[in-house]
Amino acid sequence: GRAEMGIAQSSSTNSEVEMQFFTDIDVTFTMTGETDNGLTFGASVDLDEGGDGSSASDDNTDDGGATIFISGGFGTVTMGDTDGAMDWALKDAGNVGNGGSIADDETSHPGYLGAYHDGAAGQDGQILRWDYSSGAFGVAISFEQGDRDLGATTGVADETDGFGLGFKYALDLSGTTVNFGLGYQTIDGLPIDVDIVGVSVDAAFGNGLSAGIVYTDGDIFGVADSDHIGVGLGYTTGALTLHANYGQYDFGDGTEADGYGLSVAYDLGGGAVVHMGYGDGDSTATAAAAPSAVTSGDRKSFSLGLGLSF
Amino acid sequence: GRAEMGIAQSSSTNSEVEMQFFTDIDVTFTMTGETDNGLTFGASVDLDEGGDGSSASDDNTDDGGATIFISGGFGTVTMGDTDGAMDWALKDAGNVGNGGSIADDETSHPGYLGAYHDGAAGQDGQILRWDYSSGAFGVAISFEQGDRDLGATTGVADETDGFGLGFKYALDLSGTTVNFGLGYQTIDGLPIDVDIVGVSVDAAFGNGLSAGIVYTDGDIFGVADSDHIGVGLGYTTGALTLHANYGQYDFGDGTEADGYGLSVAYDLGGGAVVHMGYGDGDSTATAAAAPSAVTSGDRKSFSLGLGLSF
Amino acid sequence: GRAEMGIAQSSSTNSEVEMQFFTDIDVTFTMTGETDNGLTFGASVDLDEGGDGSSASDDNTDDGGATIFISGGFGTVTMGDTDGAMDWALKDAGNVGNGGSIADDETSHPGYLGAYHDGAAGQDGQILRWDYSSGAFGVAISFEQGDRDLGATTGVADETDGFGLGFKYALDLSGTTVNFGLGYQTIDGLPIDVDIVGVSVDAAFGNGLSAGIVYTDGDIFGVADSDHIGVGLGYTTGALTLHANYGQYDFGDGTEADGYGLSVAYDLGGGAVVHMGYGDGDSTATAAAAPSAVTSGDRKSFSLGLGLSF
Repeated sequence: GRAEMGIAQSSSTNSEVEMQFFTDIDVTFTMTGETDNGLTFGASVDLDEGGDGSSASDDNTDDGGATIFISGGFGTVTMGDTDGAMDWALKDAGNVGNGGSIADDETSHPGYLGAYHDGAAGQDGQILRWDYSSGAFGVAISFEQGDRDLGATTGVADETDGFGLGFKYALDLSGTTVNFGLGYQTIDGLPIDVDIVGVSVDAAFGNGLSAGIVYTDGDIFGVADSDHIGVGLGYTTGALTLHANYGQYDFGDGTEADGYGLSVAYDLGGGAVVHMGYGDGDSTATAAAAPSAVTSGDRKSFSLGLGLSF
Repeated sequence: GRAEMGIAQSSSTNSEVEMQFFTDIDVTFTMTGETDNGLTFGASVDLDEGGDGSSASDDNTDDGGATIFISGGFGTVTMGDTDGAMDWALKDAGNVGNGGSIADDETSHPGYLGAYHDGAAGQDGQILRWDYSSGAFGVAISFEQGDRDLGATTGVADETDGFGLGFKYALDLSGTTVNFGLGYQTIDGLPIDVDIVGVSVDAAFGNGLSAGIVYTDGDIFGVADSDHIGVGLGYTTGALTLHANYGQYDFGDGTEADGYGLSVAYDLGGGAVVHMGYGDGDSTATAAAAPSAVTSGDRKSFSLGLGLSF
Repeated sequence: GRAEMGIAQSSSTNSEVEMQFFTDIDVTFTMTGETDNGLTFGASVDLDEGGDGSSASDDNTDDGGATIFISGGFGTVTMGDTDGAMDWALKDAGNVGNGGSIADDETSHPGYLGAYHDGAAGQDGQILRWDYSSGAFGVAISFEQGDRDLGATTGVADETDGFGLGFKYALDLSGTTVNFGLGYQTIDGLPIDVDIVGVSVDAAFGNGLSAGIVYTDGDIFGVADSDHIGVGLGYTTGALTLHANYGQYDFGDGTEADGYGLSVAYDLGGGAVVHMGYGDGDSTATAAAAPSAVTSGDRKSFSLGLGLSF
């Protein structure tokens, strides 16, 4: 489980949230098993995703945050609230040596890209992914369905099925591992076909420094001829972890968005960490399928508090 | 806990649900204890039944899926989401050697009867049952209240209280046990008194075969002079379990419904089972108190997937 | 965890709830840890407070029933669903030797005061409290924020911040400990400033008897020049615990409310307790910020059942 307490604040062009108390709690139930012939399987769900009436337990056509997998010599098949193959392959700028924050400010500024269309454009985020790793090389294929209108006799929603492909490669350069990721994701129709392709490179050095860059190109959030670039830096020394990332969208419709994020984490040991997070950026983007942080104009947010892991 | 992943599909006269991903997850909390003088007690609730705002935890006049019991020399008293005495006594056709399916297709076809009015006709399914077993013989009495209009000063809803009675007997015929069940359930008023009576006979043979038959007669789903018959067959050999059931309603208003269900389960060991379920039937029934599957006209459903128990 | 089953009934001037089944279930998740330099920390949340869409897990600006703390030589800092400093310092009449009931009838009669404005007048109950104990003396300071209109650019809601102060002292009189509590709580504005001050004295004697009295004065439920007095008595002998309390409000607007509560608890051992609760009182109070039990006119309620702790 995990609990967070602290203070948080955010402001954007349309909204102003005063500094206030912040509390959050997660209890995760993880279950695993093994078949007679050696396949391993498991499932996990959070307390905040279970509950009566929730999608995880009451709507079988939506993952609702639950994840279920089975694994063997054929690789791993995962179903539910998991990464699509593109998100699986690429390393986000915010995942490079980031100690985290209680309100995720450093990964929710206007210039940040993290989900690569998982759950976008009428998809419900209920993903089926196969992935397989062999030595330095990994591959994944994912399939995601559009939301079905369950009571309707029309099959229109079928057209929004999504498909993803991802590759990973870990290159050993005299002791330092450089990770390469390549991903592609497409969603059919409604209203247009949305294709994006991305590449990432990152490395962790022996002196505590890590660095990464990720580039995405295509119909980002349904806007043709768009691209995004993200860079991330992390540094760990003793109990202290520092992280910074910068991201920039250049949309094909002439709008753009950029921003940066910072986080500081100080480990008190035993699972208690002091966290500070900050995000800041500007945007003229209007794409309807974009996350609200990307289209929120000038946006700043800040949080400070204690993260407790149990 | 339990998790399921696979694909499911259904079609009926008014509705067409395309083949799509299916995920479900259950986490059950079971608690037990014992008093100083040897009474045992316990309670259980599912993660998907707890949660904020759910009936299990926030509405004390509704069971919401929680079950609480206390047991001793006097038998067992159970309160909450439990079977009424009639459902306790009878063995449904779908419970005869059934390995189960992820979407319960084989027990949700138009010809299936399973709940014997527990929770029907304004009842809330919050049942109080006493049962007692002695050797081959068992008896149960149950009481269920109509939903109370909690803020109203009228006592009208009182008239829908339900009462049930059930008997079980296990006859040993040279090594094969034949189980007999007899049950009666009545709900007062609103709009009419609803009485049903049922009998079931089933047996499990040494060769892996099991068979059962159940017959119910009375005001089924509020329609006078109705009857229902159900038959079930099961066969287990090694890791494979096959099940089939057939059910037929003959309602007193001239409408009828029938259907059959099939399931195949293959046990991979360690709690992982591959499941296939199929249900198919036709119906002209219109009784308002009937489950939607019974009044859905021509209905087919299918599911295939993996059930994981932890 | 905890489960309760039984029967409950209540009646008041506007409402009549018939005797009916009562079931409730709680599953509490408690997590604790310790930092490298010896600070202890922890968090707890109930199953009925978690769940998808609940405030505990999905709304970080509301505690939603979760409690998080960190403790060290500086005292204890608690954030979330915890007592304000005034409620922390005072001992309610209903907390004096009370064995409890399944429906809390003895502490929900029209004359009962228990929360001392925690969560009242636009506050959301998300409290930050520091408390420190040294020998017989304890002190606490608490701060609670008004509900923020999260999407609005206005800061009006800021005016309803609450502040509390509490002191405890335990006096040893030849083997019997007499506890003194003193508390103050204020909420700014909206529509008026609400200040209350209270004092409590209680003691537990060697013969199983305990007694206490609590007095509160100020703008109770926003009505100026109001006061409340509560007295409680408890007696424990063997497995049996008896409790009675009486409370009376005298509001500055000329209205008043009083009532008494009784509870009987018989311990069966192993965590199973038989509980009876009764509350009875009259009220002419109309204060909008008062709990519904206080403004419900003539009110009686009763419950009988089994409480099971696991």
